[in-house]
Amino acid sequence: MMVYDELFMRIALDLAQQAWGMTAPNPMVGAVVVRDGDIVGRGYHHRAGEPHAEPNALDDAGEAARGSTLYVTLEPCSTQGRTPPCTERILRSGIARVVYASQDANPAHRGAAEGILRAAGIEVAHGILARECDRLNEDFFWYITRKRPFVTLKMAATLDGRIATASGASQWITGAKARSDVQKLRRRAGAILVGGTTVELDNPSLTVREPADWPRQPQRLVWTSRPLPPTCKLCTDGGNAPRTAKPVSTEEWLAFLARLGTEGVMNLLLEGGGELAAAALQARIVNKIVFYYAPKILCGRGSRPLVGGMDPSSLSEALEVEDVETELFAEWEHSATIKVTGYCKDVYRAD
Amino acid sequence: MMVYDELFMRIALDLAQQAWGMTAPNPMVGAVVVRDGDIVGRGYHHRAGEPHAEPNALDDAGEAARGSTLYVTLEPCSTQGRTPPCTERILRSGIARVVYASQDANPAHRGAAEGILRAAGIEVAHGILARECDRLNEDFFWYITRKRPFVTLKMAATLDGRIATASGASQWITGAKARSDVQKLRRRAGAILVGGTTVELDNPSLTVREPADWPRQPQRLVWTSRPLPPTCKLCTDGGNAPRTAKPVSTEEWLAFLARLGTEGVMNLLLEGGGELAAAALQARIVNKIVFYYAPKILCGRGSRPLVGGMDPSSLSEALEVEDVETELFAEWEHSATIKVTGYCKDVYRAD
Repeated sequence: MMVYDELFMRIALDLAQQAWGMTAPNPMVGAVVVRDGDIVGRGYHHRAGEPHAEPNALDDAGEAARGSTLYVTLEPCSTQGRTPPCTERILRSGIARVVYASQDANPAHRGAAEGILRAAGIEVAHGILARECDRLNEDFFWYITRKRPFVTLKMAATLDGRIATASGASQWITGAKARSDVQKLRRRAGAILVGGTTVELDNPSLTVREPADWPRQPQRLVWTSRPLPPTCKLCTDGGNAPRTAKPVSTEEWLAFLARLGTEGVMNLLLEGGGELAAAALQARIVNKIVFYYAPKILCGRGSRPLVGGMDPSSLSEALEVEDVETELFAEWEHSATIKVTGYCKDVYRAD
Repeated sequence: MMVYDELFMRIALDLAQQAWGMTAPNPMVGAVVVRDGDIVGRGYHHRAGEPHAEPNALDDAGEAARGSTLYVTLEPCSTQGRTPPCTERILRSGIARVVYASQDANPAHRGAAEGILRAAGIEVAHGILARECDRLNEDFFWYITRKRPFVTLKMAATLDGRIATASGASQWITGAKARSDVQKLRRRAGAILVGGTTVELDNPSLTVREPADWPRQPQRLVWTSRPLPPTCKLCTDGGNAPRTAKPVSTEEWLAFLARLGTEGVMNLLLEGGGELAAAALQARIVNKIVFYYAPKILCGRGSRPLVGGMDPSSLSEALEVEDVETELFAEWEHSATIKVTGYCKDVYRAD
């Protein structure tokens, strides 16, 4: 049975992602119940306040849960929240073995489920696909311990690192598939922040438009000390009222992020331009980068750079990016946009 | 047997690459002889003037060639060159089936081998792994019809598209694995061209140093209208004497390339900096780009850009890159350099 653990956990992970962008401030969690190699129950956490993944999967399995294995992407909760503790529900179900991936983000609860379940004679294993499952909820894990949002910097550029012509034209550098991928990032975002120049030049709406009936729209924030142009979409489209702020130092950024944290924003998406990118990177508050490179070379000494900001005096001041990965979006017949993701090594952690 | 064609052709392709950088002005070619599913002969073309891949593989097979299949990465030659026609050698060997990948680059000879072999009752197939085998000799195929070198632009940058600090420091942006990959590009290059500023700032040697006993060193060319600094390595290290030239317009570039072509240079490697990159790209003479992106963000409005040059007035002037591919070089424990290759769509072809 053990050799299938990764397979079934991957199915649980896929289930978890069914609720992409819907669970904040909770994590995404998926679960499957497996009996003699067959999946007899599936479930995931749909949204905060509704049942967790485990009772959903166990309800789906019914009596078949007895003697089965439960795979769940996150350590089951062992305390009363808005719903009863999942450990109790597991004990009642007659499950014989529990396999989970990520550990509880709260150090006070971490490992508690393992103890409770083992004490009742249930076999427990964890850590299977932990890296992938931790990644899935990276914003939740960051937010739960620091109470400020996980910050993703998303930028779209040409292969030579340009985001616009010298006069500011930037639409469209990437194609429809990359822009659709950005919609996925927005569905996770509690707030989106863009620079004042980006509002003036691009007049973005900063809304989720895929799917058209998406129920949660992010807060819309503009990094500027000037008033917004009164005719911009952010001011006139009837959506969430835009707010402005211009933190520059790390201290100002942390205060800004803490305020968003108290408003329940656990995922902040920065969408450029190059000066906002530089300010956030140089203040060390960017957790993750998502850069889309269109298969084009713009050229031009005055074309706008991916990242502006103050000039470093030496190469050693370059910010290090860890765990880089690439993905290709085949946008056009003979070419593709390259998506690069990575994590800023020296992000301010305060821990 | 047919289902194994791709497998055996891949082995022939690997053999071809044993002579990487050694065959110019000839292509790299590999061959295997297969009898009842076993490889009974292997060969590749070692260098110009020496035997082709086919006689090497057939000699290796000996009597076992009779009734066997010959896999070869390029259509066998059918005319007398510095060595006798391979088609004759194949006929004498008793080979029953010939499978080749790429077609002869010379339109006058293309398909000739197929006709000769079929007329002798030999079964012939071609096109298996043709894309990979065509790519392997992309410089040869380009040069043979146009008599000017295939031009590769290699650049190393940070993720934000910077090749140096404002003051010009660029060593080292990437790590040892990416630099070793550049050595592989140099082994293929008949000549290397860099900008005058690159010589002043980086003082490169532009030599092949891996392996230490490499027998062929590229010509060393500097894109400048000024005299070289007399103390630069290019002038003092006792290697190939550097030459200078500064073509700017497409016409000047074509004349420059034609001259290199008459000298037998079929592969020209451009190694930056950003102004040379822009001049060559904007003149439409770059065939292929090889960009290495270190997992770093340099920041800085004045940091030196991957590609400089004149500012385009609109995004539609961006140069399109086709068939982009990525590869990761795990240089450091938690990170990797991203290699991006692609082909310039609008390269000047004159055909």
